[in-house]
Amino acid sequence: MKEVMAIVRLNKVNQTKEALASAGYPSFTCRKVLGRGKKLIDMSLLTSIVDAGEVPVSPVGEYLTESARLIPKRVFTLIVEDDDVNKVVDVIMDANSTGNPGDGKIFVLPIYESYKVRTGESTLEAY
Amino acid sequence: MKEVMAIVRLNKVNQTKEALASAGYPSFTCRKVLGRGKKLIDMSLLTSIVDAGEVPVSPVGEYLTESARLIPKRVFTLIVEDDDVNKVVDVIMDANSTGNPGDGKIFVLPIYESYKVRTGESTLEAY
Amino acid sequence: MKEVMAIVRLNKVNQTKEALASAGYPSFTCRKVLGRGKKLIDMSLLTSIVDAGEVPVSPVGEYLTESARLIPKRVFTLIVEDDDVNKVVDVIMDANSTGNPGDGKIFVLPIYESYKVRTGESTLEAY
Repeated sequence: MKEVMAIVRLNKVNQTKEALASAGYPSFTCRKVLGRGKKLIDMSLLTSIVDAGEVPVSPVGEYLTESARLIPKRVFTLIVEDDDVNKVVDVIMDANSTGNPGDGKIFVLPIYESYKVRTGESTLEAY
Repeated sequence: MKEVMAIVRLNKVNQTKEALASAGYPSFTCRKVLGRGKKLIDMSLLTSIVDAGEVPVSPVGEYLTESARLIPKRVFTLIVEDDDVNKVVDVIMDANSTGNPGDGKIFVLPIYESYKVRTGESTLEAY
Repeated sequence: MKEVMAIVRLNKVNQTKEALASAGYPSFTCRKVLGRGKKLIDMSLLTSIVDAGEVPVSPVGEYLTESARLIPKRVFTLIVEDDDVNKVVDVIMDANSTGNPGDGKIFVLPIYESYKVRTGESTLEAY
């Protein structure tokens, strides 16, 4: 099994949820983070993001100087079978690709064991 | 070393904390997430969850349609020695198993290196 | 590639951000967690932390007894090339080491695949 971790824009959360559910991957968690990529943020870009509703009220209040400002993002985490990783990555890419900086990143991590609490059912990987 | 990541119900946080501390595992982090499992949520189930205090005020405001609604959950993260993984998984299962859908999942991930910031002490795994 | 996960004090967030950006690692996410280490928290220590502004208003309201009380922390997550792991760990250690309990921990996890959503560019590791 693998963990697929996707950092997406705030305003792409619903679209990502719908795309994953439609594709047969309804199980995931979504959490708030602040983050930034490699690009320094210039004020004009920031203004356009604010206009688009991506920077509402500061959720943590830990912003630094504008150029190093962190942008609110959402992180989706899915645990999927190895054979489903490519499909899930494609679905998330399709839902989030706008061609602009800030479209996000997707990372894949190994999962060695998984347990369903209700039943005790477990899946162990060879490693 | 391994990371044990457990997705649990909101109202099981204190019980999980106490169980882990009692069993000798007092070190962990706990964070808010929204999430859902494979099961579509029907309104009767949702109402019973709301009654039980599991869905308070929407913490993120990113709910979609009811059937794809995300439920507030908590994620515990512990980093433990390989030999302690089974014990920790058992403790979390015992504290969280109610037999109902939504009891949560536990995942185990590899940790390659760990550092204690205060002392600089490190643990490196062979991999 | 590797994930570097660092648990730091609330009042070290800006210093950590600046140190990482200065060292050439401007890309990361930062999120809120509650957590604790191995040490039980005594009330005198807690008072000094509150005085130092580290425990503001309870962000989650899931505190237990004082001795098992969880402290608000921040978790930085960076995804870096294998060759950059040591440097990033050093930068975070330097920015966060005060010699007092609660300085935090750093963990390194494997990343098997990474994708840039905008371009579709991917990096796959041999594993």
